Amino acid sequence: MMNKELMTAKILEAKVDKGMTWEALAESIGMSPVFTTSVCFGMNSFSEDKAFALCETLGLDKDVAQALQDFPKKSWDGGVPQDPLIYRLYEVVGVYGDTMKALIHEKFGDGIMSAIDFTMDIEKEENPKGDRVVVTMNGKFLPYKAW
Amino acid sequence: MMNKELMTAKILEAKVDKGMTWEALAESIGMSPVFTTSVCFGMNSFSEDKAFALCETLGLDKDVAQALQDFPKKSWDGGVPQDPLIYRLYEVVGVYGDTMKALIHEKFGDGIMSAIDFTMDIEKEENPKGDRVVVTMNGKFLPYKAW
Amino acid sequence: MMNKELMTAKILEAKVDKGMTWEALAESIGMSPVFTTSVCFGMNSFSEDKAFALCETLGLDKDVAQALQDFPKKSWDGGVPQDPLIYRLYEVVGVYGDTMKALIHEKFGDGIMSAIDFTMDIEKEENPKGDRVVVTMNGKFLPYKAW
Amino acid sequence: MMNKELMTAKILEAKVDKGMTWEALAESIGMSPVFTTSVCFGMNSFSEDKAFALCETLGLDKDVAQALQDFPKKSWDGGVPQDPLIYRLYEVVGVYGDTMKALIHEKFGDGIMSAIDFTMDIEKEENPKGDRVVVTMNGKFLPYKAW
Amino acid sequence: MMNKELMTAKILEAKVDKGMTWEALAESIGMSPVFTTSVCFGMNSFSEDKAFALCETLGLDKDVAQALQDFPKKSWDGGVPQDPLIYRLYEVVGVYGDTMKALIHEKFGDGIMSAIDFTMDIEKEENPKGDRVVVTMNGKFLPYKAW
Amino acid sequence: MMNKELMTAKILEAKVDKGMTWEALAESIGMSPVFTTSVCFGMNSFSEDKAFALCETLGLDKDVAQALQDFPKKSWDGGVPQDPLIYRLYEVVGVYGDTMKALIHEKFGDGIMSAIDFTMDIEKEENPKGDRVVVTMNGKFLPYKAW
Amino acid sequence: MMNKELMTAKILEAKVDKGMTWEALAESIGMSPVFTTSVCFGMNSFSEDKAFALCETLGLDKDVAQALQDFPKKSWDGGVPQDPLIYRLYEVVGVYGDTMKALIHEKFGDGIMSAIDFTMDIEKEENPKGDRVVVTMNGKFLPYKAW
Amino acid sequence: MMNKELMTAKILEAKVDKGMTWEALAESIGMSPVFTTSVCFGMNSFSEDKAFALCETLGLDKDVAQALQDFPKKSWDGGVPQDPLIYRLYEVVGVYGDTMKALIHEKFGDGIMSAIDFTMDIEKEENPKGDRVVVTMNGKFLPYKAW
Amino acid sequence: MMNKELMTAKILEAKVDKGMTWEALAESIGMSPVFTTSVCFGMNSFSEDKAFALCETLGLDKDVAQALQDFPKKSWDGGVPQDPLIYRLYEVVGVYGDTMKALIHEKFGDGIMSAIDFTMDIEKEENPKGDRVVVTMNGKFLPYKAW
Amino acid sequence: MMNKELMTAKILEAKVDKGMTWEALAESIGMSPVFTTSVCFGMNSFSEDKAFALCETLGLDKDVAQALQDFPKKSWDGGVPQDPLIYRLYEVVGVYGDTMKALIHEKFGDGIMSAIDFTMDIEKEENPKGDRVVVTMNGKFLPYKAW
Repeated sequence: MMNKELMTAKILEAKVDKGMTWEALAESIGMSPVFTTSVCFGMNSFSEDKAFALCETLGLDKDVAQALQDFPKKSWDGGVPQDPLIYRLYEVVGVYGDTMKALIHEKFGDGIMSAIDFTMDIEKEENPKGDRVVVTMNGKFLPYKAW
Repeated sequence: MMNKELMTAKILEAKVDKGMTWEALAESIGMSPVFTTSVCFGMNSFSEDKAFALCETLGLDKDVAQALQDFPKKSWDGGVPQDPLIYRLYEVVGVYGDTMKALIHEKFGDGIMSAIDFTMDIEKEENPKGDRVVVTMNGKFLPYKAW
Repeated sequence: MMNKELMTAKILEAKVDKGMTWEALAESIGMSPVFTTSVCFGMNSFSEDKAFALCETLGLDKDVAQALQDFPKKSWDGGVPQDPLIYRLYEVVGVYGDTMKALIHEKFGDGIMSAIDFTMDIEKEENPKGDRVVVTMNGKFLPYKAW
Repeated sequence: MMNKELMTAKILEAKVDKGMTWEALAESIGMSPVFTTSVCFGMNSFSEDKAFALCETLGLDKDVAQALQDFPKKSWDGGVPQDPLIYRLYEVVGVYGDTMKALIHEKFGDGIMSAIDFTMDIEKEENPKGDRVVVTMNGKFLPYKAW
Repeated sequence: MMNKELMTAKILEAKVDKGMTWEALAESIGMSPVFTTSVCFGMNSFSEDKAFALCETLGLDKDVAQALQDFPKKSWDGGVPQDPLIYRLYEVVGVYGDTMKALIHEKFGDGIMSAIDFTMDIEKEENPKGDRVVVTMNGKFLPYKAW
Repeated sequence: MMNKELMTAKILEAKVDKGMTWEALAESIGMSPVFTTSVCFGMNSFSEDKAFALCETLGLDKDVAQALQDFPKKSWDGGVPQDPLIYRLYEVVGVYGDTMKALIHEKFGDGIMSAIDFTMDIEKEENPKGDRVVVTMNGKFLPYKAW
Repeated sequence: MMNKELMTAKILEAKVDKGMTWEALAESIGMSPVFTTSVCFGMNSFSEDKAFALCETLGLDKDVAQALQDFPKKSWDGGVPQDPLIYRLYEVVGVYGDTMKALIHEKFGDGIMSAIDFTMDIEKEENPKGDRVVVTMNGKFLPYKAW
Repeated sequence: MMNKELMTAKILEAKVDKGMTWEALAESIGMSPVFTTSVCFGMNSFSEDKAFALCETLGLDKDVAQALQDFPKKSWDGGVPQDPLIYRLYEVVGVYGDTMKALIHEKFGDGIMSAIDFTMDIEKEENPKGDRVVVTMNGKFLPYKAW
Repeated sequence: MMNKELMTAKILEAKVDKGMTWEALAESIGMSPVFTTSVCFGMNSFSEDKAFALCETLGLDKDVAQALQDFPKKSWDGGVPQDPLIYRLYEVVGVYGDTMKALIHEKFGDGIMSAIDFTMDIEKEENPKGDRVVVTMNGKFLPYKAW
Repeated sequence: MMNKELMTAKILEAKVDKGMTWEALAESIGMSPVFTTSVCFGMNSFSEDKAFALCETLGLDKDVAQALQDFPKKSWDGGVPQDPLIYRLYEVVGVYGDTMKALIHEKFGDGIMSAIDFTMDIEKEENPKGDRVVVTMNGKFLPYKAW
């Protein structure tokens, strides 16, 4: 059985060889770029058909297709990320966490935004003063159950 | 000099007394709900006119207006948040951090999304299967300088 | 505004004065013991009618009723609990976490058990070799969304 | 001597080859699915007959049977788990720990629920609004000894 | 309701005033010194009669007697103790933990020594080369349940 | 030079092959089971004659005998142990640390129990309600020097 | 694909063989010593022409040139550095952090010094009492956006 | 005796009342802005004459002057700073620490930059693309002693 | 009962009022400066006569004398000290710990230097290139007991 | 290029083969035992002549001599050491840190003892009650610079 680390390494190698972007790869199998990339990094899993479609696009064999379908055990580095791009996202959660909580409670009541029934989209907004990254997170509101 | 903790307490008390939402409070001074709430929680600062406008809306005196203009020293609880709503946001950064990094690099080159030249918006998307929280983050792309 | 710590202290005091158990208190307002206790400890919130019902039972005033309705910011002590009763629960998660993950994935596919759309029940099972604690957790299965 | 990591790897491989579920594997040797899976993950040990029965079912040799009988040194990743399924269980302990302590004390007196004289069962509850995971923990109550 | 910290302070003050040792205090109520001291430090609880007996010995009122009966939430300082006397005990667990595990498993099978059904005794062994501290721990062996 | 990890592995393998217990092994060289086991786990060192005696008993060569004499650098896993048997010992130190300190100070004055001039013994106490583990620690009292 | 660790090892080896300093290496490709060194240590990336220029200078092949262009995931050892040279820099941030914050706010308003649009220079200042290290950091001021 | 926290609070209050900047305050006593601010924040100490000069400028009494001369025990918040301005400085140490070490060793040999025989200067560099913060650190090189 | 914090505060205040150094204070009671200072900081305890002698010298009452005799529970800030003077000592332990272990083992065999039967002396060595601090630690060698 | 770990391993092996002590090794090259051992453990570096002298004494080749001259990146295990000999030194810093700070400040003014311009000596003091370890640290006093 191929593990997720080897799966990721094989995909990255084939992706460079084919000269494909993550966007093109995602489009070729009819999935979003964020979800597709997260599966290839071992943080989500594909259904059988998507797994085989991706392997076909990249010319990879069925061991990779199987690994893409395995349900991952998610983990990441330490409690506080270090890479500046990822740290800034962590900082946003720290600085705006209470604010987001207050506004979501105001609009929806007591509950949370699901990180499971969740999608994300990343776009480039062109701007003469410097282009901007636009991240859109969309998660189902889950109200706390009272019983 | 009034510190930020006391400032926040006085604003929360007046807000309840006036029966105002964060959205209405923000609208009354012509600022966004996210930024307004974050200033009231002591995580950002207002210009003088916005600080006085907010105090006028809430019937608070100039000590609060002064505290709203002070530049905050930002801090939050521990490295890993515990409240479920805030933890889910942290989890999103953990699960999707490498994915976001890969896609931002693909679209923009080596650099980061600024958390300083940054705006955020939180909306409610009505949905018969359960309403959804939509968080939009918009940050300037900052390319790494080579020298 | 009364904070959750003071609310809890007032409830505990009144509960001792009235000589009521958590079970009796919960029954008096038509809610479950686990949920009722967690609200009184500041970890969940009541609807307005349940908050006033509980205050009526205990002879507490409307400040407490208001505090019971406030949406809590949940937090607990450190990362690893120390009290032996709570530590044993933490140990169960450590020892059986991967096992629970494997069996839930086998029955349901890739996803999680919700801790939000969630109920818990604690019962005593009489046993001549020593009575047993029976904890039943019931959470909605949330499948990971692919997009 | 075969260590637990290799034992687990061999079992997982044989299990996939045989196309067996954890439930079927447990049933074939007359043990519960939770305990069987936890032994295979190296978190508990089997008696000699169960160890050999499992190896017979899976066509594994006696090195694996020996490793299944070794008493494990239990350990898990870090203090706060990261995988969302396991984290939610940790969160339940954090949010409801004091509540569970209060209710167990109310029903049993000062003591704990054993994590050693302990069984667990995981079931699927079908529900038109979304199936639910039902986890039942059953542990002997151990009263604190006074001396 | 008196909390455990105040209870301990009142007992320590009265103990100094009466000029009593922990041993004498324990003997006066017919309990062991270790258990008695641990209750007075808020780490265990007394039955009603022992609580009142201790308060009688020390001339303390019934608030203290009530607090002595409350079931404690146990906690201690950090993960690694700093006081040299307590650190040495921690070091013994670190240095001899695997050894104790191996010998207990050899004598009893897979299981643990209970810290709940547990007693401890501390004696002075006179020795011309320097007196020695003798600590005896006695805990019920709890075998892991297979199911 | 053979390191301690390899030394331990060779001893464990030979011990299984010879079918010897730690107790029998210790007896064969005229040392206590706790000390012998701790040396074999790399946490203490033997004198030359004991090292060779143990290797003779187990049929191991002089590389192992040399490694048994090397002075170890002691270390263990993390700050808070995870294996339940070892964790319970840690919990005892947490719960009873202040109590042990108070009673040792009462009997001996200001000082500590040595963990270096120290012996430990582990016995099985048969009991119809369940056998009990008896751990006896015996350490020299070291008074703080005033100068 | 060559990873950053191997890239750094190959560069260090070639640099020793050629007997070149970091300064000379930087000068040979028309970049600053700090940036050049940081790229070779895997903390920044080069444009294609600089990557090939460096490989030409050092006689390295195109695998290294490719690795020099890869966008790095930045990370470093733990939260508090241990090497004395690096620790002293950390200590400066600890001791003077609030001071730097106060003076930057006084000169620029609320905002930060960018660590992305950032350059650094290290010079030797000769001094009869002992030469001095002069570190100059130059980062764009980024004002907090209000919205 | 006045402690450093109270000293800082009194200085900040007087500084606001007088409407003085840190720069003006430093100039009034003939010291640098960075050192002066760090003393007022309790991270360094003044000689007697500078302490009295500062108190004269701000109209503060001799308790403050005494506190300014006390040798501080330096400490800061946690291991990883959270305020974005201070975090960026920490990030610079993380990202460029090995680079700075390599270049300082290349210029000076094995040793460190002193954080004690150390000065710092912060300037504003006007720039049409956005003003820049220029931080200059100047520390004595201390070679490792061989003996 | 006076606690150690208040005891230290009273001693520091009286010491300033009397204009005495730690050295003079120690000499006045016939004890060493290091031990005397450590007792006054609450890290060691005095015999009755020394406690009263110190209070006589400083004009303090018997509450302080009693507190000086109490056996302290020693603790310090965090795991890694921050004040530069104390950090340098920690760094010495980190950098030279294995070296000290090797040399002590070479001279004495397997064992440790006691931190309990221990004295310390701090002297100033005048030197034209800069005066030097000379710290002499003297601890009894404790050999590991084999049993 | 040989790294420090391999260098240390080769030296330890040759030292055992030659049957030399650290003291004899140090004497053979005219350096102190503490410094020599620390270089061999990779915590300091030698000048070229000392590096070659040591290799000649031990019969090692020039790869080792080169590695002995490399400037080390110092690091050690975790924040709190575990080996009892090293932990006792850490404990001394914790218990006596504030005392050492007070006495050094009293003798020298505000500043620190250098850990860079620093020497250490370890001696055996024979004593009928048990031999004693005498550690002498000698570091240049560095006064804080005011500017």
